[in-house]
Amino acid sequence: MLGAIEAGGTKFVLAVGHSPTEIADRHVIPTRQPDETLAEALEWFRRHDRVDALGIGSFGPVDLDPSSATWGHIGNTPKQGWAGCDIAGYFAGSLGVPIGFDTDVNAAALAEAKSGAGRGVSSLAYITVGTGIGGGLVIGGWPVHGAAHPEMGHIFVQRPHAEMGFAGVCKHHGACLEGVASGPAILARWGATLSDLSPTHEAHGIVAGYLAQLCHNLFAITAVEAVVLGGGVMKTPGLIGLVRQEALRLDNGYLAAGARHQIVTPELGDNAGITGALMLADQAIPLAPAQM
Amino acid sequence: MLGAIEAGGTKFVLAVGHSPTEIADRHVIPTRQPDETLAEALEWFRRHDRVDALGIGSFGPVDLDPSSATWGHIGNTPKQGWAGCDIAGYFAGSLGVPIGFDTDVNAAALAEAKSGAGRGVSSLAYITVGTGIGGGLVIGGWPVHGAAHPEMGHIFVQRPHAEMGFAGVCKHHGACLEGVASGPAILARWGATLSDLSPTHEAHGIVAGYLAQLCHNLFAITAVEAVVLGGGVMKTPGLIGLVRQEALRLDNGYLAAGARHQIVTPELGDNAGITGALMLADQAIPLAPAQM
Repeated sequence: MLGAIEAGGTKFVLAVGHSPTEIADRHVIPTRQPDETLAEALEWFRRHDRVDALGIGSFGPVDLDPSSATWGHIGNTPKQGWAGCDIAGYFAGSLGVPIGFDTDVNAAALAEAKSGAGRGVSSLAYITVGTGIGGGLVIGGWPVHGAAHPEMGHIFVQRPHAEMGFAGVCKHHGACLEGVASGPAILARWGATLSDLSPTHEAHGIVAGYLAQLCHNLFAITAVEAVVLGGGVMKTPGLIGLVRQEALRLDNGYLAAGARHQIVTPELGDNAGITGALMLADQAIPLAPAQM
Repeated sequence: MLGAIEAGGTKFVLAVGHSPTEIADRHVIPTRQPDETLAEALEWFRRHDRVDALGIGSFGPVDLDPSSATWGHIGNTPKQGWAGCDIAGYFAGSLGVPIGFDTDVNAAALAEAKSGAGRGVSSLAYITVGTGIGGGLVIGGWPVHGAAHPEMGHIFVQRPHAEMGFAGVCKHHGACLEGVASGPAILARWGATLSDLSPTHEAHGIVAGYLAQLCHNLFAITAVEAVVLGGGVMKTPGLIGLVRQEALRLDNGYLAAGARHQIVTPELGDNAGITGALMLADQAIPLAPAQM
């Protein structure tokens, strides 16, 4: 049996399953302070058959460096009480099983790559466009780490003339992508969500243009076969089509966006993160001697 | 013995070596038409001890998909006569040895990652800023492919107000990074190279700002530990320092550019590509049964 946690800032999704794609039981608890939240999650796992490994896809920043003393800890998050929380260590100690640990968006990217929108591709980026813009990256079938983990939302992109008066809402970078195309950035200049604005409102084209540049830059920098665009903002009717159209226009035939590179919507919906966390659990189980 | 070719648009660098970091002999020939260039290269290898494998780092675009019928071919290049050239097949047939094949910039990235500026890191981007802006990407010790290969130069970045009147020189994208920060883009608006302009000329700051955004976007999208900036434009005195300074300013402490992420100059100089090609040869040698 595999166990999994999708640790979010507002809720924890818990699951057990016999394989990553067969969820046997699933439960959601609110994210409160670390000690009560982790204890409640542990209690839930103890009511089930013993798991062989636990996968955790966590909100960030997190420490993914296996050689670091703070591997599996949450980093310097503004979320009160959670900075420095040793989430992986808590479950390694209490459950006594191997822990697979990554970001929530890398877990979702892994799930969409292996059994969702990216089935059959070996490289994929998963982007969520909502309160923030986050993303995960899978290359050659594995989530990409590096010095830390991808922070897709904070790239800089070209801005149309009409936008030059808007300073952007990112606290760190002003008008980085998250500063101009996230939910709060849309609210800041148009006073409504994209879905609530008329379909003919210029906001749709402007936001699509920014997201198309994200896709183009991902294709140019990583050559990923697919970009999966999810999150609340992407639920705006027609937006994915506009992004594709704008990406084709920007690319002008060079990278063969649309042919060689795909821009797609998530297939696993709300289960992408937890499915990916089950995959992390599966990958954390040591190979039996006969398999090594 | 390993053999290697760095296949460039103006010259082919040929080398043999007992290991990737020990070049036993090295030779440069001009790039003419494919048949004479490849024959001249073959002739040179035949004058040396038989190689066990040949690594090729080639100008692009190239087909890197091992399942493709045109793997190892040069793609739709504007370089006359070379589109569709089966460069890997030519040497596989004539030398009868395994061929390692990648882009010239992925080869250089591999070399800088394993024995150059990135020694000790597992993820690195290598960028060359010259007539064009190209780059290679190494993640987890391996060059990244995907739907094709990275085309770093064609990303879109933010443009300062003062630059809005300049349409850029990229034939495909106008004011993409290559369109505003390559050698020809610098010549187009200031009539001289950066090195020939006064150190107090605004061009230095503008170009450094664009290249800093490339580094920032690379850090944000791939979390690479190091970006190696090479090529003719980067030989401008003081430019690397300006890029670092601008990247720190743009990042504003968020991704910890400068601490966690490094912006460095190449260490292998003109030998990066050919050293990487020798590494590709080394990787192409099948493991002996005892090692498998």
